[in-house]
Amino acid sequence: MAIPEMQWAQVAEKIGGPLVYKQIPVPKPGPDEILVNIHFTGVCHTDLHAMNGHWPLPVKMPLVGGHEGAGVVVAKGDLVTEFDIGDYAGIKWLNGSCLACEFCKQADEPLCPHATLSGYTVDGTFQQYTVGKAAHASKIPNNVPLDAIAPVLCAGITVYKGLRESGARPGQTVAIVGAGGGLGSLALQYAKAMGIRVIAIDGGDEKKALCQDLGAEAYVDFTKSQDLVADVKAATPGGLGAHAVLLLAVSEKPFQQATEYVRSRGSVVVIGLPAGAFLKAPVFDTTVRMINIKGSYVGNRQDGEEAIDFFARGLIKAPFKTVPLKELPRVFELMGLFPPNDFVEYANARN
Amino acid sequence: MAIPEMQWAQVAEKIGGPLVYKQIPVPKPGPDEILVNIHFTGVCHTDLHAMNGHWPLPVKMPLVGGHEGAGVVVAKGDLVTEFDIGDYAGIKWLNGSCLACEFCKQADEPLCPHATLSGYTVDGTFQQYTVGKAAHASKIPNNVPLDAIAPVLCAGITVYKGLRESGARPGQTVAIVGAGGGLGSLALQYAKAMGIRVIAIDGGDEKKALCQDLGAEAYVDFTKSQDLVADVKAATPGGLGAHAVLLLAVSEKPFQQATEYVRSRGSVVVIGLPAGAFLKAPVFDTTVRMINIKGSYVGNRQDGEEAIDFFARGLIKAPFKTVPLKELPRVFELMGLFPPNDFVEYANARN
Amino acid sequence: MAIPEMQWAQVAEKIGGPLVYKQIPVPKPGPDEILVNIHFTGVCHTDLHAMNGHWPLPVKMPLVGGHEGAGVVVAKGDLVTEFDIGDYAGIKWLNGSCLACEFCKQADEPLCPHATLSGYTVDGTFQQYTVGKAAHASKIPNNVPLDAIAPVLCAGITVYKGLRESGARPGQTVAIVGAGGGLGSLALQYAKAMGIRVIAIDGGDEKKALCQDLGAEAYVDFTKSQDLVADVKAATPGGLGAHAVLLLAVSEKPFQQATEYVRSRGSVVVIGLPAGAFLKAPVFDTTVRMINIKGSYVGNRQDGEEAIDFFARGLIKAPFKTVPLKELPRVFELMGLFPPNDFVEYANARN
Amino acid sequence: MAIPEMQWAQVAEKIGGPLVYKQIPVPKPGPDEILVNIHFTGVCHTDLHAMNGHWPLPVKMPLVGGHEGAGVVVAKGDLVTEFDIGDYAGIKWLNGSCLACEFCKQADEPLCPHATLSGYTVDGTFQQYTVGKAAHASKIPNNVPLDAIAPVLCAGITVYKGLRESGARPGQTVAIVGAGGGLGSLALQYAKAMGIRVIAIDGGDEKKALCQDLGAEAYVDFTKSQDLVADVKAATPGGLGAHAVLLLAVSEKPFQQATEYVRSRGSVVVIGLPAGAFLKAPVFDTTVRMINIKGSYVGNRQDGEEAIDFFARGLIKAPFKTVPLKELPRVFELMGLFPPNDFVEYANARN
Repeated sequence: MAIPEMQWAQVAEKIGGPLVYKQIPVPKPGPDEILVNIHFTGVCHTDLHAMNGHWPLPVKMPLVGGHEGAGVVVAKGDLVTEFDIGDYAGIKWLNGSCLACEFCKQADEPLCPHATLSGYTVDGTFQQYTVGKAAHASKIPNNVPLDAIAPVLCAGITVYKGLRESGARPGQTVAIVGAGGGLGSLALQYAKAMGIRVIAIDGGDEKKALCQDLGAEAYVDFTKSQDLVADVKAATPGGLGAHAVLLLAVSEKPFQQATEYVRSRGSVVVIGLPAGAFLKAPVFDTTVRMINIKGSYVGNRQDGEEAIDFFARGLIKAPFKTVPLKELPRVFELMGLFPPNDFVEYANARN
Repeated sequence: MAIPEMQWAQVAEKIGGPLVYKQIPVPKPGPDEILVNIHFTGVCHTDLHAMNGHWPLPVKMPLVGGHEGAGVVVAKGDLVTEFDIGDYAGIKWLNGSCLACEFCKQADEPLCPHATLSGYTVDGTFQQYTVGKAAHASKIPNNVPLDAIAPVLCAGITVYKGLRESGARPGQTVAIVGAGGGLGSLALQYAKAMGIRVIAIDGGDEKKALCQDLGAEAYVDFTKSQDLVADVKAATPGGLGAHAVLLLAVSEKPFQQATEYVRSRGSVVVIGLPAGAFLKAPVFDTTVRMINIKGSYVGNRQDGEEAIDFFARGLIKAPFKTVPLKELPRVFELMGLFPPNDFVEYANARN
Repeated sequence: MAIPEMQWAQVAEKIGGPLVYKQIPVPKPGPDEILVNIHFTGVCHTDLHAMNGHWPLPVKMPLVGGHEGAGVVVAKGDLVTEFDIGDYAGIKWLNGSCLACEFCKQADEPLCPHATLSGYTVDGTFQQYTVGKAAHASKIPNNVPLDAIAPVLCAGITVYKGLRESGARPGQTVAIVGAGGGLGSLALQYAKAMGIRVIAIDGGDEKKALCQDLGAEAYVDFTKSQDLVADVKAATPGGLGAHAVLLLAVSEKPFQQATEYVRSRGSVVVIGLPAGAFLKAPVFDTTVRMINIKGSYVGNRQDGEEAIDFFARGLIKAPFKTVPLKELPRVFELMGLFPPNDFVEYANARN
Repeated sequence: MAIPEMQWAQVAEKIGGPLVYKQIPVPKPGPDEILVNIHFTGVCHTDLHAMNGHWPLPVKMPLVGGHEGAGVVVAKGDLVTEFDIGDYAGIKWLNGSCLACEFCKQADEPLCPHATLSGYTVDGTFQQYTVGKAAHASKIPNNVPLDAIAPVLCAGITVYKGLRESGARPGQTVAIVGAGGGLGSLALQYAKAMGIRVIAIDGGDEKKALCQDLGAEAYVDFTKSQDLVADVKAATPGGLGAHAVLLLAVSEKPFQQATEYVRSRGSVVVIGLPAGAFLKAPVFDTTVRMINIKGSYVGNRQDGEEAIDFFARGLIKAPFKTVPLKELPRVFELMGLFPPNDFVEYANARN
């Protein structure tokens, strides 16, 4: 396949945008890199945060955003042995890391101080051809549809990691706060596939129906419950509370409640990165009940392979719509109207 | 040995005290209990909290306080096989638990909903003869001095548990906040005996000398440091922060600092039970650095055996003074003048 | 309910039997014990081993065998709080343990040097009324059929424990040797309920059909395979071997093969107690591939609760036949004709 | 520093040798590699096995052996960021691995199917200039003497890994079989530095003195003991056996004994690679005592950093002699006269 010199891309030229749809050069892979022809890319609230400079982490400008790209390897550097031309590959949030620091040596690449981030510190997947470190790109089995896998590359891996960090074992119960949203419905499916029982917490009857369809054993509606903590505990074995809680949309009240309905010795796992938010927990109860509050970021490379494998085995479904890459600004507009966890991960931009 | 019908005890007859030194009946052990003739008992800030009803947990009244009693078994119930008359035994905070609930079945007796607490929900060690569940009393080797071991039964076990909960491995670095105080100096010694390196954080030159004597590799003086976070990080391998932090006197500022100088993936372990205090941490940093905030309560029975074993092997020293049981009120007065972590655990009441 | 003075029991009066069906006194529970009216009891090859003195562990004589009894609590001692009269309860292999030794303190009651064994060192469930330590008897939800649960109390717990010991996580692959037998078909169902993928190894088309019905992803027939090791590896992700192996009928050849088709860093878990058998593995391969060979005995009390919970949620089925207790000798005769793993656990004796 | 075109090396030109001391070209590092000017290299029995083709793993020929080289970085590829020219670096057994397979992704690089081995599948350290993958070379602090660190790069890391794999915690007891030998005396020192108590098992009074000097709590002499199993158990807490056993020279009898004196639930860790040796253990005891038999190969990269750190902190001493590289054949001759564990790791070849 001939690789062109120029390609279409959506470029943010300064903090705050706007996105400009234009032609830019196709990048060349280094010795340990691959060049991926992106067929589909998920769109995520993180992309908005990046373009708008919301986070306390410097963002590259001008920027090609996007960090959930699925496509085909079209070129590779001399050192690359793990991919062949024509293989399916996924470009994730973690574009590369040093593989040599203390964190990389312990399989915690996401904590590498030298990590590069797709669509944040290096150009991402809102373009036709994206470069990624071969050792970090995800292998995608060739029978997996590239449109459907795209959102798994970020949202799927993130919730799978969160479930692993929670320490919940098969047969135990996890409460998922925001279970009816984008991340939540993926989390619910991963939990079920892992033999973990789910108490879904969200608002409204539409979400109730969705959560029950996906296999939640109980649904607690925060818009209707008189006593959320009591209702969640009542839904757990022995009324002792959930073995773990996944907090997908962190804000103060749900966090405080989570520390109350989590089982003694259980974990409250915090996922999601609202700028400026704080956790607050009472010392006495946290201590005498030996509660564990954990931040969970994105998965490492192995988590990625495993999350994709669950999907490839048909255990995870994520609905999505596909629009041309040219229409990305319209997707961003729509996302701005919804809370993060409601929209995320379901739109694909096709180039 | 003849067991008298009556004995001397320090009794709080109502919330807030005062203590009354008087004769009360010697209790009788049930089928699964032992009766211990207390030779020495530690005195701890918890005893003040109990008498004054500071905690959100109902306290028995009238109350014989005390939960660090070391003595000799003088009677036992028919089911007891693990103790013989004449054995040394320790009565700890956890006087008994059901041994049959989900928590007990997983060796988390301190989380048992039916646990009884010495000097809190059942009478404790500020009397000549105390009853305890045989399965919960600590075995004390007969060559261990009973006066020196008393404070280990609470403070020693608590900090040993905290170190275990921290997940720090031999060769890694733990920052101990309040390292020069009562709990802290024990924690420092346990850490060293476990092959863990210590950065001591406390205030003043006297504490510095103490910490260095006990083997701290670095001392950061919070009364002098211009930038505590930077100074602690500078003292850690690679400047990446401490693998874990032990917070022995929880208040908001030290907690916030701890979340900053702890290494990514590290644990901040919260020990100590100030009434009404809160933890507060920024979501963004906690998540992207995958920090773990853990409450650690008292150790379980096995932690107790292990903590005593370190002491019995001569690796742990705790200075103490001994006064007659009659003078307990004077000890309480002194304790009121000091912050919890400075005084705790070093006074013995001898009956 | 009136408790009679005398009851029917099957008694082995000396090593080697025979069983005598006769009336004996109903035992009285001690302060920490319950008396269970046994409705159904599983029959297991272990019962044959016990009666015949096959194992290097002294057996009580005369003996009432049986260690998978399900029934109703009809009396209890004064210290018992965890059971009420009328509750369903299960009497397992581990009738009691000291709850105070180093192993019990770490939730490894099966390793307690003072453990008592139902139908081996104390009288078991081949009688109408059996005594058990309350803290060791299993709680059985009152909506669970007592005939169906009986075999779970031994076989179910044992294979569930084996799966936990294997370290296999949801999404990983376990090879089960003897998957079509009694223990095996339970193991297969537990694995599936835990999100673990199964490669079933057994002989013949009937077992193949059974294993596939129960959800095995692959079946390797040792009676037909030209190269068992290669065939098992071919069925695993990436051809790298199974993450763990459950060996339910230990003999030398299957064990050696297991060490070859297990993935590097994987575990070969040995379950089952053939008298006089040995494990033999090559040092070089075991070392450079960092293979883990683990013996797994029965589950602890918490494993028991969890295994029962999977059953109570309808995820585990075990076919069984029921015969009157009087006919137990005929069941023993039949069992002698079959290999252990083919028959076990499916016959109930009803009193 | 000018890098010459040609260098001196010890070359085995065919299986079985002999070594030829001659000039060969200096290799060039690839983009992800460093070139190290070797100052000192340990000599190990593995080097003999390699030259003689003892193992079931094909060896490169002609071969420059050696896998414990310490020196200075003199050149590096364009992708290398973790080393600067002039840094100290160590070349270990694992010269490189793919860093992208399932094992590498989980920090088990030694299990990588694409791993390259120094002095075995690629040329090693018996030459003046050796190439290694930068991500695999060990960082050596610039204040560490290069002659003394050399043997740590293989023997030190291996025993440190074995101790970690043993699962022994600070305060627990490890029996080291062959504690007075090369690997053993390092293992003993690492154990002590990790807060682990050691029972040394070896033969003779000279070894006894050495082991006691290094901090062993007990010494059992297999040449004198009437009942080794009983003697080891008697030296452990409560007589219950060692929490773990490190077997440094695997042969059948010591292995069988180890399974007998290891504590229930404990681990027997097998280190060392005798060609053709087998492990053999009784099923009954392995199962009812839940014993864990683990093969431990070399450490991963992080284990390497940690093992070096213990050395750099002055906690590990390894005596050694230094000879010129030219005299390597004489060292090989000497090694042939000693059992592996007695000589290993103490000779340095200086170029």
